Amino acid sequence: MLCSMPTPSTTSDRVWRVTQDGAAIRDEVVAIEEPLAIRIDGVVASVTMRTPGADRELAIGFLRAERVISSADDVVHAAADTGADGVDAIDVRLGDSARSRFVTSRRATIASTSCGLCGVVDINRLIADVPLVERSGGDSRLVVAASTLLNLPDAMRREQAAFERTGGLHAAALVDLGVAGGADAERAIEVCREDVGRHNAVDKVIGWATLRRVGWLGRSALVVSGRTSFEIVQKSAVAGVPIVVAVSAPSSLAIDCARRAGITLVGFVRAGAMNVYSGFERLEGKGG
Amino acid sequence: MLCSMPTPSTTSDRVWRVTQDGAAIRDEVVAIEEPLAIRIDGVVASVTMRTPGADRELAIGFLRAERVISSADDVVHAAADTGADGVDAIDVRLGDSARSRFVTSRRATIASTSCGLCGVVDINRLIADVPLVERSGGDSRLVVAASTLLNLPDAMRREQAAFERTGGLHAAALVDLGVAGGADAERAIEVCREDVGRHNAVDKVIGWATLRRVGWLGRSALVVSGRTSFEIVQKSAVAGVPIVVAVSAPSSLAIDCARRAGITLVGFVRAGAMNVYSGFERLEGKGG
Repeated sequence: MLCSMPTPSTTSDRVWRVTQDGAAIRDEVVAIEEPLAIRIDGVVASVTMRTPGADRELAIGFLRAERVISSADDVVHAAADTGADGVDAIDVRLGDSARSRFVTSRRATIASTSCGLCGVVDINRLIADVPLVERSGGDSRLVVAASTLLNLPDAMRREQAAFERTGGLHAAALVDLGVAGGADAERAIEVCREDVGRHNAVDKVIGWATLRRVGWLGRSALVVSGRTSFEIVQKSAVAGVPIVVAVSAPSSLAIDCARRAGITLVGFVRAGAMNVYSGFERLEGKGG
Repeated sequence: MLCSMPTPSTTSDRVWRVTQDGAAIRDEVVAIEEPLAIRIDGVVASVTMRTPGADRELAIGFLRAERVISSADDVVHAAADTGADGVDAIDVRLGDSARSRFVTSRRATIASTSCGLCGVVDINRLIADVPLVERSGGDSRLVVAASTLLNLPDAMRREQAAFERTGGLHAAALVDLGVAGGADAERAIEVCREDVGRHNAVDKVIGWATLRRVGWLGRSALVVSGRTSFEIVQKSAVAGVPIVVAVSAPSSLAIDCARRAGITLVGFVRAGAMNVYSGFERLEGKGG
């Protein structure tokens, strides 16, 4: 079970179950939400509300999306600072080149495209700032069967340990499409992580891949349980993930961003059908 | 239709609809996501990715949740800065006392309870920092029928203009339970707003109520379409909203925060049943 984590991601609570006919107390499983600080060379880079577990991966994935690091080579050290109730912070020590990038650009993604004086974000620059996925290592010639993509959300759901119990966790998974062309979806899911925050779940799987220095991100798909925002597509582009598959809808900016980055963006994968918003050329047997 | 807004919140896009049998192009409605800057006296307080529409309300609701303002009296002026493609920023001019609060505490909620040096958030302080809802004007003796709360999500869904078409928008609504005890749920929904971001939708309805100086927030319920995080309960507590009703699950910290604030927190309202996580005493005919 790849989604399962040694750290508990859920807790139990006594709640009133109420219907028209009356009420009764029962125990319910609840997703844990707790703050985590990410420190770089002792300086606080971010405080995020997340579900405990895979905290180092979360920190590394976040820093990769922010383009502070581009690989595990940029990380000298990453360790948890553990308090009375669990992990409170992740301490990251950067290599020299990454450190200088961190000092010059903090919270790069949106901040760098907004005017420092008036705060207005230039959407064209925001989109232009997202790298072409093939420049981040993504395979522009990757071809995949529609049936493979149609199967991925169900395969991820079967891997999810906590979701079925709480209904309160988002999930993200990375699939190596080089494993039998991804035809055996369950075998192809290399990692799956859950979190109360969608972006955290994505950071966790990309951080996992970064720390393991996997060589297959360029031929992989990112699967997400909910909707797709600009930020999720941006994270994929920076990591070189050429395909993003979501159970629910993308936003307008997610679509614009995917087209600019050369990412195949798939949404509404349900009941044997899906919408392909960009990068249709990666589908085998396309045209109907 | 209370959810409808003069500004378009959706756009249309050509996508490939793919099934096992083939593919065809069709037009799909997509939720718009665009950046908005919130400026206070010319200084950028926040840049948020949001769905256009109700932008002034979003800015005012955000500033109330951050406790920069406590009522419309703290706002001298709030106006949209409109660029070529729509609203780029909201300019807010504060009264003197609010201005000094803004200068001393920026991004108050989480930042104020995290150590300035190490970034670690003290959860006990985070929770303790959330005000008792009755201190923000919430009615601690409010009593409501279970059937009223059970009807609210469906009533909100019927008010939603865009959701049915995109599947990509979250919704939030405020219900005045003083209107016939909320028994006529549709009539009791005073405002409903949609956004790609859950927190934005909540800021929009609370901002709307703040700008209109409504007198009934203390006997109101906030309805949200998705999950409940700490931040959503915190926003309700600060605004004095005593009941929060969600279609989906709360996080552990949302429950802790609701108990501390004296808020009735309801989740999983589906098919005539619901979970009550805190503040059960506000339910009429409780006990089963």
